[in-house]
Amino acid sequence: MKENGHRDERFLRKAIDLAEESAQGGGGPFGALVVKDDRIVAEGTNRVTAGNDPTAHAEIVAIRRACEALDDFQLAGCTLYASCEPCPMCLGAIYWARPERVIYAAPHADATRAGFDDSMIYDEIDRPPAERRLPMRQLLREEAQRPFRTWADNEERVAY
Amino acid sequence: MKENGHRDERFLRKAIDLAEESAQGGGGPFGALVVKDDRIVAEGTNRVTAGNDPTAHAEIVAIRRACEALDDFQLAGCTLYASCEPCPMCLGAIYWARPERVIYAAPHADATRAGFDDSMIYDEIDRPPAERRLPMRQLLREEAQRPFRTWADNEERVAY
Repeated sequence: MKENGHRDERFLRKAIDLAEESAQGGGGPFGALVVKDDRIVAEGTNRVTAGNDPTAHAEIVAIRRACEALDDFQLAGCTLYASCEPCPMCLGAIYWARPERVIYAAPHADATRAGFDDSMIYDEIDRPPAERRLPMRQLLREEAQRPFRTWADNEERVAY
Repeated sequence: MKENGHRDERFLRKAIDLAEESAQGGGGPFGALVVKDDRIVAEGTNRVTAGNDPTAHAEIVAIRRACEALDDFQLAGCTLYASCEPCPMCLGAIYWARPERVIYAAPHADATRAGFDDSMIYDEIDRPPAERRLPMRQLLREEAQRPFRTWADNEERVAY
Protein backbone atom coordinates (compact mmCIF):
# COMPACT_ATOMS: atom_id res chain seq x y z
CA MET A 1 0.00 0.00 0.00
CA LYS A 2 2.85 2.35 0.83
CA GLU A 3 4.33 1.79 -2.63
CA ASN A 4 0.92 2.52 -4.17
CA GLY A 5 0.69 5.72 -2.12
CA HIS A 6 4.07 6.87 -3.43
CA ARG A 7 3.00 6.25 -7.00
CA ASP A 8 -0.24 8.13 -6.43
CA GLU A 9 1.62 11.12 -5.05
CA ARG A 10 4.06 11.08 -7.95
CA PHE A 11 1.32 11.09 -10.60
CA LEU A 12 -0.78 13.61 -8.70
CA ARG A 13 2.22 15.97 -8.51
CA LYS A 14 2.50 15.69 -12.29
CA ALA A 15 -1.17 16.75 -12.60
CA ILE A 16 -0.47 19.72 -10.31
CA ASP A 17 2.57 20.61 -12.45
CA LEU A 18 0.35 20.59 -15.56
CA ALA A 19 -2.10 22.90 -13.77
CA GLU A 20 0.75 25.23 -12.86
CA GLU A 21 2.01 25.35 -16.47
CA SER A 22 -1.50 26.06 -17.71
CA ALA A 23 -1.96 28.89 -15.20
CA GLN A 24 1.41 30.38 -16.17
CA GLY A 25 0.17 30.52 -19.78
CA GLY A 26 -3.07 32.27 -18.75
CA GLY A 27 -5.21 29.13 -19.06
CA GLY A 28 -7.41 27.69 -16.31
CA PRO A 29 -5.27 26.38 -13.39
CA PHE A 30 -6.18 22.71 -13.80
CA GLY A 31 -4.37 19.56 -14.94
CA ALA A 32 -5.21 15.86 -15.20
CA LEU A 33 -3.66 12.55 -16.25
CA VAL A 34 -4.94 9.10 -17.12
CA VAL A 35 -2.64 6.30 -15.98
CA LYS A 36 -2.82 2.60 -16.82
CA ASP A 37 -0.37 -0.08 -15.67
CA ASP A 38 1.83 2.59 -14.10
CA ARG A 39 2.18 4.43 -17.43
CA ILE A 40 0.72 7.82 -18.43
CA VAL A 41 -1.78 7.22 -21.25
CA ALA A 42 -2.83 10.86 -21.69
CA GLU A 43 -2.52 14.30 -20.15
CA GLY A 44 -4.90 17.23 -20.18
CA THR A 45 -4.96 20.88 -19.18
CA ASN A 46 -7.83 23.32 -19.23
CA ARG A 47 -8.44 24.59 -22.78
CA VAL A 48 -11.72 26.51 -22.27
CA THR A 49 -10.58 29.94 -23.32
CA ALA A 50 -7.65 28.89 -25.53
CA GLY A 51 -9.87 26.56 -27.55
CA ASN A 52 -13.27 28.29 -27.25
CA ASP A 53 -14.64 25.11 -25.72
CA PRO A 54 -16.50 25.34 -22.39
CA THR A 55 -16.32 21.54 -22.07
CA ALA A 56 -12.51 21.43 -22.33
CA HIS A 57 -11.75 21.02 -18.64
CA ALA A 58 -8.49 19.19 -17.90
CA GLU A 59 -10.26 15.94 -16.98
CA ILE A 60 -12.42 15.94 -20.12
CA VAL A 61 -9.38 16.64 -22.30
CA ALA A 62 -7.42 13.82 -20.61
CA ILE A 63 -10.34 11.37 -20.86
CA ARG A 64 -10.91 12.10 -24.56
CA ARG A 65 -7.20 11.75 -25.35
CA ALA A 66 -6.89 8.55 -23.30
CA CYS A 67 -9.86 6.98 -25.10
CA GLU A 68 -8.30 7.93 -28.41
CA ALA A 69 -4.96 6.43 -27.36
CA LEU A 70 -6.59 3.23 -26.08
CA ASP A 71 -9.05 3.06 -29.01
CA ASP A 72 -11.93 2.49 -26.61
CA PHE A 73 -14.85 4.45 -25.14
CA GLN A 74 -14.14 3.13 -21.64
CA LEU A 75 -11.15 3.53 -19.32
CA ALA A 76 -11.19 0.09 -17.70
CA GLY A 77 -8.28 -0.41 -15.33
CA CYS A 78 -7.23 3.25 -15.48
CA THR A 79 -6.70 5.82 -12.72
CA LEU A 80 -7.54 9.48 -13.29
CA TYR A 81 -5.36 11.98 -11.42
CA ALA A 82 -6.65 15.56 -11.21
CA SER A 83 -5.13 18.65 -9.63
CA CYS A 84 -8.59 19.57 -8.30
CA GLU A 85 -11.77 17.72 -7.41
CA PRO A 86 -13.81 17.24 -10.60
CA CYS A 87 -16.74 19.62 -11.21
CA PRO A 88 -20.14 17.99 -11.87
CA MET A 89 -19.54 17.98 -15.64
CA CYS A 90 -16.23 16.15 -15.22
CA LEU A 91 -17.64 13.85 -12.55
CA GLY A 92 -20.40 12.86 -14.97
CA ALA A 93 -17.79 12.26 -17.70
CA ILE A 94 -15.82 10.09 -15.28
CA TYR A 95 -18.86 7.90 -14.56
CA TRP A 96 -19.47 7.46 -18.29
CA ALA A 97 -15.77 6.67 -18.94
CA ARG A 98 -15.62 4.25 -15.98
CA PRO A 99 -12.00 4.45 -14.79
CA GLU A 100 -11.14 2.25 -11.82
CA ARG A 101 -10.52 5.15 -9.43
CA VAL A 102 -9.88 8.88 -9.12
CA ILE A 103 -7.20 10.66 -7.11
CA TYR A 104 -7.50 14.44 -6.75
CA ALA A 105 -5.69 17.17 -4.85
CA ALA A 106 -7.66 20.38 -4.12
CA PRO A 107 -11.22 19.90 -2.82
CA HIS A 108 -13.81 21.71 -4.92
CA ALA A 109 -14.28 24.41 -2.29
CA ASP A 110 -10.75 25.55 -3.20
CA ALA A 111 -11.82 25.97 -6.86
CA THR A 112 -14.87 27.95 -5.76
CA ARG A 113 -12.66 30.20 -3.63
CA ALA A 114 -10.38 30.72 -6.65
CA GLY A 115 -13.36 31.97 -8.69
CA PHE A 116 -14.60 28.79 -10.40
CA ASP A 117 -18.25 28.28 -9.71
CA ASP A 118 -18.35 24.53 -9.08
CA SER A 119 -20.45 24.87 -5.93
CA MET A 120 -23.24 26.71 -7.75
CA ILE A 121 -23.43 23.85 -10.26
CA TYR A 122 -23.50 21.20 -7.52
CA ASP A 123 -26.38 23.13 -5.91
CA GLU A 124 -28.28 23.53 -9.17
CA ILE A 125 -28.08 19.83 -10.11
CA ASP A 126 -29.83 19.04 -6.83
CA ARG A 127 -32.86 21.14 -7.70
CA PRO A 128 -35.78 19.92 -9.82
CA PRO A 129 -35.42 21.32 -13.38
CA ALA A 130 -38.28 23.80 -12.99
CA GLU A 131 -36.65 25.34 -9.89
CA ARG A 132 -33.20 25.96 -11.35
CA ARG A 133 -31.89 29.45 -12.01
CA LEU A 134 -31.29 28.32 -15.61
CA PRO A 135 -34.76 28.17 -17.20
CA MET A 136 -35.49 24.57 -18.27
CA ARG A 137 -38.73 23.39 -19.81
CA GLN A 138 -40.01 19.93 -20.73
CA LEU A 139 -42.20 19.38 -23.83
CA LEU A 140 -43.24 16.59 -26.26
CA ARG A 141 -42.53 13.62 -23.98
CA GLU A 142 -44.53 11.14 -26.06
CA GLU A 143 -42.81 12.03 -29.35
CA ALA A 144 -39.44 11.65 -27.65
CA GLN A 145 -40.01 7.93 -26.99
CA ARG A 146 -39.59 7.05 -30.66
CA PRO A 147 -35.73 7.17 -30.71
CA PHE A 148 -35.59 4.95 -27.62
CA ARG A 149 -37.81 2.36 -29.34
CA THR A 150 -35.70 2.55 -32.51
CA TRP A 151 -32.57 2.01 -30.41
CA ALA A 152 -34.07 -0.99 -28.58
CA ASP A 153 -35.11 -2.54 -31.91
CA ASN A 154 -31.76 -1.96 -33.64
CA GLU A 155 -29.71 -5.13 -33.36
CA GLU A 156 -26.61 -3.31 -34.60
CA ARG A 157 -26.60 -1.00 -31.57
CA VAL A 158 -23.47 -0.83 -29.43
CA ALA A 159 -24.40 -0.52 -25.74
CA TYR A 160 -22.32 1.91 -23.71
CA MET B 1 -45.84 33.48 -26.13
CA LYS B 2 -47.89 31.14 -28.26
CA GLU B 3 -45.61 31.93 -31.22
CA ASN B 4 -42.60 31.15 -29.00
CA GLY B 5 -44.20 27.84 -27.99
CA HIS B 6 -44.62 26.86 -31.64
CA ARG B 7 -40.99 27.67 -32.35
CA ASP B 8 -39.88 25.65 -29.35
CA GLU B 9 -41.88 22.64 -30.51
CA ARG B 10 -40.49 22.95 -34.03
CA PHE B 11 -36.85 23.01 -32.88
CA LEU B 12 -37.43 20.31 -30.30
CA ARG B 13 -38.95 18.04 -32.98
CA LYS B 14 -35.77 18.57 -34.99
CA ALA B 15 -33.70 17.41 -31.98
CA ILE B 16 -35.94 14.32 -31.70
CA ASP B 17 -35.47 13.67 -35.43
CA LEU B 18 -31.69 13.81 -34.96
CA ALA B 19 -32.00 11.31 -32.09
CA GLU B 20 -34.07 9.04 -34.31
CA GLU B 21 -31.51 9.18 -37.14
CA SER B 22 -28.71 8.42 -34.68
CA ALA B 23 -30.60 5.42 -33.26
CA GLN B 24 -31.30 4.11 -36.77
CA GLY B 25 -27.54 4.14 -37.40
CA GLY B 26 -26.83 2.23 -34.18
CA GLY B 27 -25.66 5.29 -32.24
CA GLY B 28 -27.07 6.49 -28.94
CA PRO B 29 -30.70 7.70 -29.34
CA PHE B 30 -30.04 11.34 -28.51
CA GLY B 31 -30.01 14.62 -30.45
CA ALA B 32 -29.53 18.30 -29.62
CA LEU B 33 -29.46 21.72 -31.28
CA VAL B 34 -28.21 25.17 -30.35
CA VAL B 35 -30.41 27.98 -31.66
CA LYS B 36 -29.74 31.71 -31.67
CA ASP B 37 -32.03 34.40 -33.10
CA ASP B 38 -34.35 31.71 -34.47
CA ARG B 39 -31.52 30.10 -36.45
CA ILE B 40 -29.80 26.73 -35.86
CA VAL B 41 -26.16 27.41 -34.96
CA ALA B 42 -25.13 23.77 -34.47
CA GLU B 43 -26.52 20.25 -34.23
CA GLY B 44 -25.25 17.24 -32.31
CA THR B 45 -25.97 13.55 -32.02
CA ASN B 46 -24.48 11.01 -29.66
CA ARG B 47 -21.01 9.94 -30.88
CA VAL B 48 -19.83 7.88 -27.89
CA THR B 49 -19.32 4.54 -29.60
CA ALA B 50 -18.83 5.85 -33.15
CA GLY B 51 -16.07 8.21 -32.01
CA ASN B 52 -14.66 6.34 -28.99
CA ASP B 53 -15.47 9.37 -26.86
CA PRO B 54 -17.50 8.86 -23.67
CA THR B 55 -18.00 12.64 -23.45
CA ALA B 56 -19.58 12.91 -26.90
CA HIS B 57 -23.20 13.13 -25.80
CA ALA B 58 -25.48 15.02 -28.21
CA GLU B 59 -25.57 18.13 -26.02
CA ILE B 60 -21.77 18.26 -25.61
CA VAL B 61 -21.27 17.81 -29.36
CA ALA B 62 -23.80 20.58 -30.11
CA ILE B 63 -22.27 22.94 -27.51
CA ARG B 64 -18.72 22.41 -28.82
CA ARG B 65 -19.81 22.96 -32.42
CA ALA B 66 -21.88 26.03 -31.53
CA CYS B 67 -18.94 27.60 -29.68
CA GLU B 68 -16.74 26.91 -32.67
CA ALA B 69 -19.32 28.47 -35.03
CA LEU B 70 -19.78 31.53 -32.78
CA ASP B 71 -16.05 31.79 -31.99
CA ASP B 72 -16.81 32.10 -28.29
CA PHE B 73 -16.64 29.95 -25.16
CA GLN B 74 -20.09 31.05 -24.05
CA LEU B 75 -23.53 30.62 -25.60
CA ALA B 76 -25.06 33.96 -24.58
CA GLY B 77 -28.56 34.42 -25.99
CA CYS B 78 -28.78 30.81 -27.21
CA THR B 79 -31.36 28.10 -26.52
CA LEU B 80 -30.32 24.46 -26.27
CA TYR B 81 -32.91 21.92 -27.46
CA ALA B 82 -32.35 18.31 -26.44
CA SER B 83 -34.35 15.17 -27.21
CA CYS B 84 -33.83 14.05 -23.59
CA GLU B 85 -33.18 15.73 -20.27
CA PRO B 86 -29.42 16.32 -19.96
CA CYS B 87 -27.40 13.88 -17.83
CA PRO B 88 -25.25 15.42 -15.04
CA MET B 89 -22.23 15.70 -17.36
CA CYS B 90 -24.25 17.61 -19.95
CA LEU B 91 -26.01 19.69 -17.31
CA GLY B 92 -22.61 20.72 -15.97
CA ALA B 93 -21.47 21.58 -19.51
CA ILE B 94 -24.62 23.68 -19.97
CA TYR B 95 -23.88 25.70 -16.82
CA TRP B 96 -20.34 26.35 -18.03
CA ALA B 97 -21.54 27.31 -21.55
CA ARG B 98 -24.31 29.55 -20.13
CA PRO B 99 -27.06 29.40 -22.76
CA GLU B 100 -30.17 31.45 -21.98
CA ARG B 101 -32.47 28.44 -21.56
CA VAL B 102 -32.88 24.71 -22.20
CA ILE B 103 -35.88 22.91 -23.72
CA TYR B 104 -35.91 19.11 -23.51
CA ALA B 105 -38.33 16.34 -24.37
CA ALA B 106 -37.93 13.02 -22.50
CA PRO B 107 -37.39 13.29 -18.72
CA HIS B 108 -34.24 11.51 -17.55
CA ALA B 109 -36.26 8.65 -16.06
CA ASP B 110 -37.07 7.69 -19.67
CA ALA B 111 -33.36 7.46 -20.47
CA THR B 112 -32.81 5.31 -17.40
CA ARG B 113 -35.64 3.00 -18.47
CA ALA B 114 -34.05 2.76 -21.93
CA GLY B 115 -30.80 1.52 -20.36
CA PHE B 116 -28.81 4.75 -19.88
CA ASP B 117 -27.68 5.11 -16.32
CA ASP B 118 -28.35 8.81 -15.71
CA SER B 119 -30.11 8.20 -12.39
CA MET B 120 -27.14 6.37 -10.91
CA ILE B 121 -24.92 9.36 -11.75
CA TYR B 122 -27.40 11.83 -10.23
CA ASP B 123 -27.36 9.70 -7.05
CA GLU B 124 -23.58 9.43 -6.95
CA ILE B 125 -22.99 13.18 -7.33
CA ASP B 126 -25.08 13.71 -4.20
CA ARG B 127 -22.78 11.54 -2.09
CA PRO B 128 -19.57 12.79 -0.44
CA PRO B 129 -16.56 11.64 -2.53
CA ALA B 130 -15.45 9.04 0.02
CA GLU B 131 -18.89 7.36 -0.04
CA ARG B 132 -19.24 6.96 -3.79
CA ARG B 133 -19.16 3.56 -5.49
CA LEU B 134 -16.31 4.95 -7.62
CA PRO B 135 -13.26 5.06 -5.33
CA MET B 136 -12.12 8.69 -4.97
CA ARG B 137 -9.26 9.85 -2.80
CA GLN B 138 -7.97 13.29 -1.88
CA LEU B 139 -4.23 13.96 -1.39
CA LEU B 140 -1.70 16.86 -1.46
CA ARG B 141 -4.15 19.70 -0.82
CA GLU B 142 -1.45 22.23 0.09
CA GLU B 143 0.66 21.61 -3.02
CA ALA B 144 -2.46 22.02 -5.15
CA GLN B 145 -2.91 25.66 -4.11
CA ARG B 146 0.08 26.79 -6.17
CA PRO B 147 -1.69 26.80 -9.58
CA PHE B 148 -4.57 28.83 -8.09
CA ARG B 149 -2.08 31.44 -6.82
CA THR B 150 -0.30 31.52 -10.18
CA TRP B 151 -3.66 32.05 -11.92
CA ALA B 152 -4.66 34.86 -9.55
CA ASP B 153 -1.30 36.57 -10.11
CA ASN B 154 -1.34 36.22 -13.92
CA GLU B 155 -2.69 39.45 -15.39
CA GLU B 156 -3.01 37.81 -18.82
CA ARG B 157 -5.60 35.33 -17.52
CA VAL B 158 -8.97 35.16 -19.28
CA ALA B 159 -11.75 34.61 -16.73
CA TYR B 160 -14.45 32.11 -17.74
